[in-house]
Amino acid sequence: MSVTAPRGFRAAGVTAGLKTSGGKDLALVVNDGPEHVCASVFTANRCKANPVLWSQEVVKDGTARAVVLNSGGANCYTGAEGFQTTHAVAEQVAAGLGVGAVDVVVCSTGLIGLANPRELVLRGVDDALAALSAGHGTDAAEAIMTTDSVSKQVVVEGSGWSIGGMAKGAGMLAPQLATMLVVLTTDAQVDAATADRALRAATRVSFDRLDSDGCMSTNDTVTLLASGASGITPPEADFTEALVRACTDLAMQLLADAEGADHEIAITVLNAATEDDAVEVGRSVARSNLFKAAVFGNDPNWGRVLASIGTTGAAFDPADLDVAMNGVWVCRASEPHTPPDQVDLTGRDVSVTIDLKAGTARATVWTNDLTHAYVHENSAYSS
Amino acid sequence: MSVTAPRGFRAAGVTAGLKTSGGKDLALVVNDGPEHVCASVFTANRCKANPVLWSQEVVKDGTARAVVLNSGGANCYTGAEGFQTTHAVAEQVAAGLGVGAVDVVVCSTGLIGLANPRELVLRGVDDALAALSAGHGTDAAEAIMTTDSVSKQVVVEGSGWSIGGMAKGAGMLAPQLATMLVVLTTDAQVDAATADRALRAATRVSFDRLDSDGCMSTNDTVTLLASGASGITPPEADFTEALVRACTDLAMQLLADAEGADHEIAITVLNAATEDDAVEVGRSVARSNLFKAAVFGNDPNWGRVLASIGTTGAAFDPADLDVAMNGVWVCRASEPHTPPDQVDLTGRDVSVTIDLKAGTARATVWTNDLTHAYVHENSAYSS
Repeated sequence: MSVTAPRGFRAAGVTAGLKTSGGKDLALVVNDGPEHVCASVFTANRCKANPVLWSQEVVKDGTARAVVLNSGGANCYTGAEGFQTTHAVAEQVAAGLGVGAVDVVVCSTGLIGLANPRELVLRGVDDALAALSAGHGTDAAEAIMTTDSVSKQVVVEGSGWSIGGMAKGAGMLAPQLATMLVVLTTDAQVDAATADRALRAATRVSFDRLDSDGCMSTNDTVTLLASGASGITPPEADFTEALVRACTDLAMQLLADAEGADHEIAITVLNAATEDDAVEVGRSVARSNLFKAAVFGNDPNWGRVLASIGTTGAAFDPADLDVAMNGVWVCRASEPHTPPDQVDLTGRDVSVTIDLKAGTARATVWTNDLTHAYVHENSAYSS
Repeated sequence: MSVTAPRGFRAAGVTAGLKTSGGKDLALVVNDGPEHVCASVFTANRCKANPVLWSQEVVKDGTARAVVLNSGGANCYTGAEGFQTTHAVAEQVAAGLGVGAVDVVVCSTGLIGLANPRELVLRGVDDALAALSAGHGTDAAEAIMTTDSVSKQVVVEGSGWSIGGMAKGAGMLAPQLATMLVVLTTDAQVDAATADRALRAATRVSFDRLDSDGCMSTNDTVTLLASGASGITPPEADFTEALVRACTDLAMQLLADAEGADHEIAITVLNAATEDDAVEVGRSVARSNLFKAAVFGNDPNWGRVLASIGTTGAAFDPADLDVAMNGVWVCRASEPHTPPDQVDLTGRDVSVTIDLKAGTARATVWTNDLTHAYVHENSAYSS
């Protein structure tokens, strides 16, 4: 179901032949209306892939009819030829739907510097158009998988309306969007400004706080399509809250499937002077290779947590920091407290709690441990 | 020789019993004058170890008589008790030399949160005082080793004067000083202001541009002692140039011995608008786990280089970037150029050259690849 759970949407996932594995690699999600509201958030990376450059223009007017996505090639740094392929794909989708190409969002994922064979993609688009169905949401979710081991889908129910979503991304989960492609759909009636506000609010506390390996992708795109087919206009707060739940659910699915991870780590920063401070501190710990390798070794090495906190500009007293791991306060007032051997890190879920004692703001940042499997997956294969 | 190569210095390296291995773990370097000029650079980490807090005060007047260093425990986040140990060590050294404790720099390295047994350290200080000799520079260099596989020493000859140095640090090599302890000595006549300027100029282009794993230590200290025993006052430019050579030589020794590395990677950024831009771009690539894992796999993945460049605020046109690996231009004007299979990364030394086409400034940042051995060394043992 996922993206086709809300009324007004059809989807397809087909094999265009871009993936060497021969699996599904082209997905199409179509909004049949009556409304065609759209909002998107893109990677903050200044080196953007061709489909991102295209789609940024598509969504500017707050409307879109469809999202077409391919795995098997990022179409990034492939020159004018690559941009023309993105354009041709949008045109092909638009022609099949009887709409304008300027209402077709395009997303690609895969290796940078690799051109997508245009003939194959266009034939895949034709197959996808023919396969469109309100029952094919799962096909679409499967077609955007790359190194993902499972597809990621979500449905959140509102009062007479719902939100559906699918996501891919197992590698470069990073701030200001991970390497991820996400499509969210809803049959709620929301205008473009509301959709944009809600999407930014939701990605800010979900995908943006997922920092698997500190790397930032060139292709990240999160797109929300609203059909209005339920005829119901929910209060903005309700809609935003449901969208936060959908995005957080997908983000946790991405985290659990990050390349080669043995542990999911939630770093919660308490009593920060500002939410930005809390996020900065959480991110600094999430990016410490030394800390992440220690977690892989089930070693509650709180010294590496303090060393990371100290690299930030956040407000705190270096002599008065508290750190807990899995609920055990191993450091109080910047001194050893409960002995680390009382912390059991053998489970998959690890929590780190940092008390900055500088205010009342808080934030949680999620990451994974640094494992042999991560090194293997990112050294043995090009991706 | 190393720190005892210049006239006016004695050193010792002894076993105090702090290291579980039973190896040498306490070093002492004494400046016998006639001058006692000193300059130091400390970690930029806001979470500083007790010896750093102490030594920052010691060097404020530009003079010091001795540097005492221990491995086997960082004396960081060990509370008031830990600070008192640092103070007691300085007092013990000072008493032995007949000088004031405020002229004794103290350095520690090892696990954070671990108190150094005061009795053992003080007994070690007595042994070191008794062992002081102009022939014991190598003993001192060996006593500061932690996970280092070899000691790091250097001598640079001037015209009638020289510079000697020793360093330790194999793990957290990072900007604004790596996890490193460095002692440099010279018999040149330099005043405190000159020593300080020369040291900052030298560390800025050497240790500061070594970024092995992006982590920043709590204990980093680089100290220069000048005895004036040669009776020669070199031109400041000559002295600075020799100090740059000494620091760069030690930095390259640290790089070559970084924990678990298979490749030394030099990232040179050309034609940047400013030197700061060049350093920011180089550092962003040096910190990309994806890029570093690719190098471990001998995969010339230039897409991961571009993705890192795009995360910076440096001046460049994302559509006009050139990237070479080992001299082969795999990317020109942000498009694929020479096929990556013509790049051979099997050797230890890897060069990445990035042309930003935005100015005339340049900089080189050094890092290592991300390997299974790195993960093993930092997960299987506490450090």
